Amino acid sequence: MRVVKKIKEMKKIADQLRKEGKIIGFVPTMGYLHEGHLSLVKIAKRKSDVCVVSIFVNPLQFGPKEDYHTYPRNFKRDKKLLTALGVDIIFYPSEKEIYPEPCLTSVQVKKLSEGLCGRVRPGHFEGVATIVTKLFNIVKPHIAVFGQKDYQQAIIIKKMVKDLNFDIKIIIAPTIREKNGLACSSRNIYLNEKERKEATVLYQSLRLAKKMIKEGERNSERIIKEMKKLITTKSSGKIDYIEIVDAKTLAPVKKISGKVCIALAVFFGKARLIDNILVQSG
Amino acid sequence: MRVVKKIKEMKKIADQLRKEGKIIGFVPTMGYLHEGHLSLVKIAKRKSDVCVVSIFVNPLQFGPKEDYHTYPRNFKRDKKLLTALGVDIIFYPSEKEIYPEPCLTSVQVKKLSEGLCGRVRPGHFEGVATIVTKLFNIVKPHIAVFGQKDYQQAIIIKKMVKDLNFDIKIIIAPTIREKNGLACSSRNIYLNEKERKEATVLYQSLRLAKKMIKEGERNSERIIKEMKKLITTKSSGKIDYIEIVDAKTLAPVKKISGKVCIALAVFFGKARLIDNILVQSG
Repeated sequence: MRVVKKIKEMKKIADQLRKEGKIIGFVPTMGYLHEGHLSLVKIAKRKSDVCVVSIFVNPLQFGPKEDYHTYPRNFKRDKKLLTALGVDIIFYPSEKEIYPEPCLTSVQVKKLSEGLCGRVRPGHFEGVATIVTKLFNIVKPHIAVFGQKDYQQAIIIKKMVKDLNFDIKIIIAPTIREKNGLACSSRNIYLNEKERKEATVLYQSLRLAKKMIKEGERNSERIIKEMKKLITTKSSGKIDYIEIVDAKTLAPVKKISGKVCIALAVFFGKARLIDNILVQSG
Repeated sequence: MRVVKKIKEMKKIADQLRKEGKIIGFVPTMGYLHEGHLSLVKIAKRKSDVCVVSIFVNPLQFGPKEDYHTYPRNFKRDKKLLTALGVDIIFYPSEKEIYPEPCLTSVQVKKLSEGLCGRVRPGHFEGVATIVTKLFNIVKPHIAVFGQKDYQQAIIIKKMVKDLNFDIKIIIAPTIREKNGLACSSRNIYLNEKERKEATVLYQSLRLAKKMIKEGERNSERIIKEMKKLITTKSSGKIDYIEIVDAKTLAPVKKISGKVCIALAVFFGKARLIDNILVQSG
């Protein structure tokens, strides 16, 4: 296992690997790894000859009032976890290495970035698309794995790769949950014991929505109403949004048909948690 | 010489060339080639093992009232010219090949895109940066050559390559002029005989500006005033803009110092001509 901190070195390694005909698998992360990340890494490893994981907390994708400075970091622990999994390269650049001068260039994916988290986090997905483009140009992977928990992000990256003709296969991997259903997230560290218990209501509400659809309900508003009721009666969570959108276009759906994504963002204390579920409506 | 129309084929060729360690030189064009383009091709050829020229009139970079539909095209002639120069590959995709579905992704280079032509052609440089990113991902060049005539474009692409960590060396090649000083441009075809003669005043005005700076003038306003006077008294040209900007940041300069770019856009009939000159002021 090798830790690479310089862009030039990472590019050189990637070029050499490509010359040798090796398949590069890539998992971009912001570190503070949990079981969700590790599942992505396992998939990337299975599908490639050389597995690269990047760890970089990207300031561009945080709003001015968001948690960039307090975002949890623990490289030592991350390194141990990735070494145990047999990762080949950790790309771990400094902020100065990635942004040596003001970055005037940005990559935007219109429409897909406008709803859901995009509405409440302006600039977030622009920051994500820009750093992912940079990382793709540095790591030069054949395959990259993203988690379904950040569903909007994964769909945006997929579209970006298609639109910009990147030669990269994007894999969206299932959300990993704790036994009680809570989706793994680095931000779960912000939860106290009570909030952590209460936050299990999020997945319960998503399952309730799925059950309603499976039983024939097609009215999004009615489903969202029931979800809100469940969350607010069973927890102290403050709902940021709950939406039902088309799984491909991410456009809000009033009358459910085809494949939909039920997505939510809820605050528990200072932690903003997101989760979603995909449902084929029949 | 090979004409490649499909993205998949172009990528495959590029991958193979890179595996073989060949240097790919690239000149992106919109076709209807003139001596300016040919000079870029000659430079690309000199600096590479395999020279690729793309011909694609990119709808994204034209405004709704601009000349996308009437932009001159003549592939047969272009092919002949490029074959004579010993170009290895012409990448000549259809619009459907490049935009098979709505392109939601765009690449923007802030600040540098805001002044000069960017002010009067909103969305133009976004269209340019997006298509160039696509072409870079398809042709995978080591070197790409752009003309100084489109100076703002060249500076934007340079910054984009740096910001997005593309592994591509951008070369800015000198403007090629007719004997009378008129900068070569595909849009010169729009000029009638009288306009073509009159348009030589543009380069005269740039040389006047350079002379004034060399003789000690440091006030941009006074220089621009003299240029305007020359253009309007000696021609029917309608000035779109004349600006003196910092050669690196493209920020307008009131008091000239360091290296500046004197840039202009002037309409002759329906042809909007641009030209510029770089001057080291001291």
